[in-house]
Amino acid sequence: MHTITLNHGLGGKQMHEFIKNSIMTKLQNGILEKMDDSAILKNLKTNRLALTTDSYVVSPLIFPGGDIGRLCVCGTVNDLTTSGAKPHALTLSFIIEEGMDLSVLDTIIDSIAQTAQEAQIQIVTGDTKVVEKGKGDKLFINTSGIGFIEDHVDISTYHTKDDDDILITGPIGNHEIAMMKARNLIDFDLTIESDVRPLNLPIENLLKQKVLLHSIKDPTRGGLASALYEIVEHSQVEITLFEKDIPIDNVVKSVCALVGFDPLYLANEGKFIITCPKKSSQDVIKAFGGVAQIIGKAKKSNHPKLLMQTESGGIRKIGMLETMQLPRIC
Amino acid sequence: MHTITLNHGLGGKQMHEFIKNSIMTKLQNGILEKMDDSAILKNLKTNRLALTTDSYVVSPLIFPGGDIGRLCVCGTVNDLTTSGAKPHALTLSFIIEEGMDLSVLDTIIDSIAQTAQEAQIQIVTGDTKVVEKGKGDKLFINTSGIGFIEDHVDISTYHTKDDDDILITGPIGNHEIAMMKARNLIDFDLTIESDVRPLNLPIENLLKQKVLLHSIKDPTRGGLASALYEIVEHSQVEITLFEKDIPIDNVVKSVCALVGFDPLYLANEGKFIITCPKKSSQDVIKAFGGVAQIIGKAKKSNHPKLLMQTESGGIRKIGMLETMQLPRIC
Repeated sequence: MHTITLNHGLGGKQMHEFIKNSIMTKLQNGILEKMDDSAILKNLKTNRLALTTDSYVVSPLIFPGGDIGRLCVCGTVNDLTTSGAKPHALTLSFIIEEGMDLSVLDTIIDSIAQTAQEAQIQIVTGDTKVVEKGKGDKLFINTSGIGFIEDHVDISTYHTKDDDDILITGPIGNHEIAMMKARNLIDFDLTIESDVRPLNLPIENLLKQKVLLHSIKDPTRGGLASALYEIVEHSQVEITLFEKDIPIDNVVKSVCALVGFDPLYLANEGKFIITCPKKSSQDVIKAFGGVAQIIGKAKKSNHPKLLMQTESGGIRKIGMLETMQLPRIC
Repeated sequence: MHTITLNHGLGGKQMHEFIKNSIMTKLQNGILEKMDDSAILKNLKTNRLALTTDSYVVSPLIFPGGDIGRLCVCGTVNDLTTSGAKPHALTLSFIIEEGMDLSVLDTIIDSIAQTAQEAQIQIVTGDTKVVEKGKGDKLFINTSGIGFIEDHVDISTYHTKDDDDILITGPIGNHEIAMMKARNLIDFDLTIESDVRPLNLPIENLLKQKVLLHSIKDPTRGGLASALYEIVEHSQVEITLFEKDIPIDNVVKSVCALVGFDPLYLANEGKFIITCPKKSSQDVIKAFGGVAQIIGKAKKSNHPKLLMQTESGGIRKIGMLETMQLPRIC
């Protein structure tokens, strides 16, 4: 087994060869190849730019439906997209634990390359650090990204308005339940995959068609409830969710029922909350292949809060995630 | 002692309170305060942008002359500056090990705020992840950054030209020797500090005065030799260093003599290699308060290489760093 050694992180010959042979060949593009300390991007077309960063510490590194490589590209592409930006370029920074199996790293870099292609984005600069055995957890990745915002676009968690529809682009909870299964934290015999994927292209299409969207938010850590809570606070609205309309796959429902998790707080990947005027909702549903659903309604309010109209007809108040359901899922 | 728990990294209430109280209050600015997933930067003034990323895994976190917070701001500001960009905004991403002392984290965030102020740059977006005890090393930080390049500026490690002067902006090796001392890897009784500092303002002044610079490179990991080697390869030049002119503090010289390290491979912070036409050299020296020095000469060559004219008058060839002198110094 070939493994990473401390020499791979020293800025010398071995590091340069490793980066050239194991990384550059897979992520090849004219900017990255320069291997300068900064990537230079030319001919910027707009005058508003989105900048985002995320570190990925998921364990295990490879899980049903994805891996840390797919996760880091999708996470950063999706974060840029939530601001209405068209993702333009990503950075890629590895913190590798000494002794890591090079073939696993190779698989992950392949996945990064494939996902970047799927999202139509380039990785333009990077960094590699190696820490001693026992001082890391095989691999942490940071991806930061920039995107450009067209002049007519104005999307923000501060922009949800009175009478807006609240949509989710697909069923919730799959990613976290898949991760729980992968970590052996639940031992039922079930088949579930993470649904991590880049969501920039459907949003770009909607914006190209001038479909009016107010807020986009990815309900990752903290789940649907915590993400909606941010929109509630930022936009000063009251949001009422319709419990019967929230899409949850049966396998996720069963696990939640059995172990007592609330699916509203389960982390998601590859899903967006979108708020928009009623007239936009059908276009959003179509853009996401018909699996998006209207799950609630916003109302201007002096007492912003998140409410749930339950299947039985009652109304209950929903808060932010208070304590742990499960760590290390993104 | 207050410590970080896994709950601090979950995207819920405790994480939001921690970020608001411990981070936002210190790094306050209008963009960061929005706490959206992407920062939006408006009114971009140029059409060339530099993008860079670096993860910092230094141990110990606090060392004579600096700390990981000062290091991460300076490192990314300086990387942007090497491309001729005026640093515009930074991202800040923490990977914190469960159990980390909150007061140490607090000191580091203070240092980030102070260094950002010194470099006149804003931190506009961030991320916080917490990993289980034993899966990290107290704190890793990633900073990514963007900067804008004025139209008249054209600096790159590919642009060193025939007859250029090679300058270094101060004595080499101090950072790595200070780190070795801090890690108890050398036990002589000596006083030495890291010289980590942001170098963007003197370069901005030179560029404002239209002083022509060809390449800027920060000789961090791999040291002066590895950094020059990159310029040699990228620009296809032969560089000859004048051993007698390379500034090295006595304390660094003594340690190197005693333990057999070559100062050319010691990591530096707060130092730039600058290559420029002769007519620019005196302006560079003045911009760095007189401590910069001409240490070599470039010559166009079909056989690019790095040479040293020794104090005794001989010529020897210098390669890249092959193996480890010391890990975890940046």
